[in-house]
Amino acid sequence: MIIVENPAELRQKVAEWKKSDKKIGFVPTMGYLHKGHLALMREAKIKSDRVIASIFVNPRQFGPNEDLEKYPRDLDRDSQMAEGEGIDVLFFPPEKVIYPEGYQTNISVSNLSKGLCGQSRPGHFDGVATIVTKLFNLVQPDIAVFGQKDYQQLALIRQLTLDLNFNIEIIGHPIVREQDGLAMSSRNRYLTTDDRASATCLYRVLQYSKNTIESEKEYPAELLTDEITEILSKVQGCTVDYIGLVHPISLQPVDKVKSGHVLAVAVYFNQSIRLIDNTTL
Amino acid sequence: MIIVENPAELRQKVAEWKKSDKKIGFVPTMGYLHKGHLALMREAKIKSDRVIASIFVNPRQFGPNEDLEKYPRDLDRDSQMAEGEGIDVLFFPPEKVIYPEGYQTNISVSNLSKGLCGQSRPGHFDGVATIVTKLFNLVQPDIAVFGQKDYQQLALIRQLTLDLNFNIEIIGHPIVREQDGLAMSSRNRYLTTDDRASATCLYRVLQYSKNTIESEKEYPAELLTDEITEILSKVQGCTVDYIGLVHPISLQPVDKVKSGHVLAVAVYFNQSIRLIDNTTL
Repeated sequence: MIIVENPAELRQKVAEWKKSDKKIGFVPTMGYLHKGHLALMREAKIKSDRVIASIFVNPRQFGPNEDLEKYPRDLDRDSQMAEGEGIDVLFFPPEKVIYPEGYQTNISVSNLSKGLCGQSRPGHFDGVATIVTKLFNLVQPDIAVFGQKDYQQLALIRQLTLDLNFNIEIIGHPIVREQDGLAMSSRNRYLTTDDRASATCLYRVLQYSKNTIESEKEYPAELLTDEITEILSKVQGCTVDYIGLVHPISLQPVDKVKSGHVLAVAVYFNQSIRLIDNTTL
Repeated sequence: MIIVENPAELRQKVAEWKKSDKKIGFVPTMGYLHKGHLALMREAKIKSDRVIASIFVNPRQFGPNEDLEKYPRDLDRDSQMAEGEGIDVLFFPPEKVIYPEGYQTNISVSNLSKGLCGQSRPGHFDGVATIVTKLFNLVQPDIAVFGQKDYQQLALIRQLTLDLNFNIEIIGHPIVREQDGLAMSSRNRYLTTDDRASATCLYRVLQYSKNTIESEKEYPAELLTDEITEILSKVQGCTVDYIGLVHPISLQPVDKVKSGHVLAVAVYFNQSIRLIDNTTL
């Protein structure tokens, strides 16, 4: 594995591979890799001949009061893990290369940026759409793998890819969970021991809702939301950000929840550590 | 020359050429070709091995009260002219292929969209940035040629290309003029005989300003603007939209005009036919 900081060097490598008809897979990350990321890398590895992973903590997808500064970073650890998965190139561009002085372009995917995380994190999805477009243009992959944990992000990137005519297959990888059900996230490490134990509440409400929809076929969204709110209200240190019951593609809220709809939940622990999770019901 | 409507067919052609190391040139147009467009095509032909031209009257770059509906269209004429210039592929996509149902992505280049035409045509440059990004992704050219007549558009596309990491060389081609100095434009055909004769006023104020700056070295922008306004006010049927004296790259207005600055002018004839022109002083 080589670590590349310079876009020109990355392009050269990609051009070489394209010339010899290699299928290129891409896994963009913000680093501080965990088993969820490694699963994406393995998926990319299976589906392509060469895999590029990127690490870039994108300031444009963090709000002014969010955790950009304290977002965990550890390149040595990350590069060992990526190398262990057989990644060919780890692209690690400096911020000023990605956003040089005078940078002024913004990409919005309007409808899919509204609601759910878009509501709580204004500007977040513009940041995502913009950096993904830039990385797609730099890497020029044939496939790109994203985690389903960021369900709204995945839906938005699918739409972006279609809308901007990228010739890239977008692959969504199922959520990778800890043994107790907590979805893997770089932010889990901020949790106190107590909050870490409580954080399984997310998985519990997903399971509860799945079971409800399995037995009921159709269920009022308002009632299910109330029940989830009730369960989460009993969890020490947990504050609900949103509970969304939505159509799987449009992400529009549904009134009557059915199998195939998506439940997406975001909570805060300790008022500051924001965790998200979702499931297809 | 082949006329291609289907993006998949276009991609296949491009992939073939890329495989045999052909350098691909691109000339995007809105059709109703004139000698200005043909000059762009010749430039692309000189600088690349295969040339793709596109014709797409992009609804997203027209305002609600603009001339989208009556914008001139003539594919037969255009394709003969393009073929005459040795264009290899004329890409002519249907609107619903470019903006299918559910389309929702928008691209903004913030600073360069302000002022000049951006002021008079809200949303115009978002439309330009978005369609150019889409076409770049479809065509994947090595070089793309744009006319300097749309000076702000050219500056914005250069910035967009940089900001979104397109690996494309942007070439600006000098304005092609009629014998009497009027810049070539698809919109010139709307002018009445009298207005057509009067429309040389644009070229006259450019020449006047060039001469002024040549002899004066430095000149107050306000004074030059007043002088240009005075000249244009005497032209029958002509209404000034804007007179801009700006920095050639940032497009920020300047107070003291010097050699190297840009004068950009937009006027209306008959309250409806909008003509633009510009020169580097």
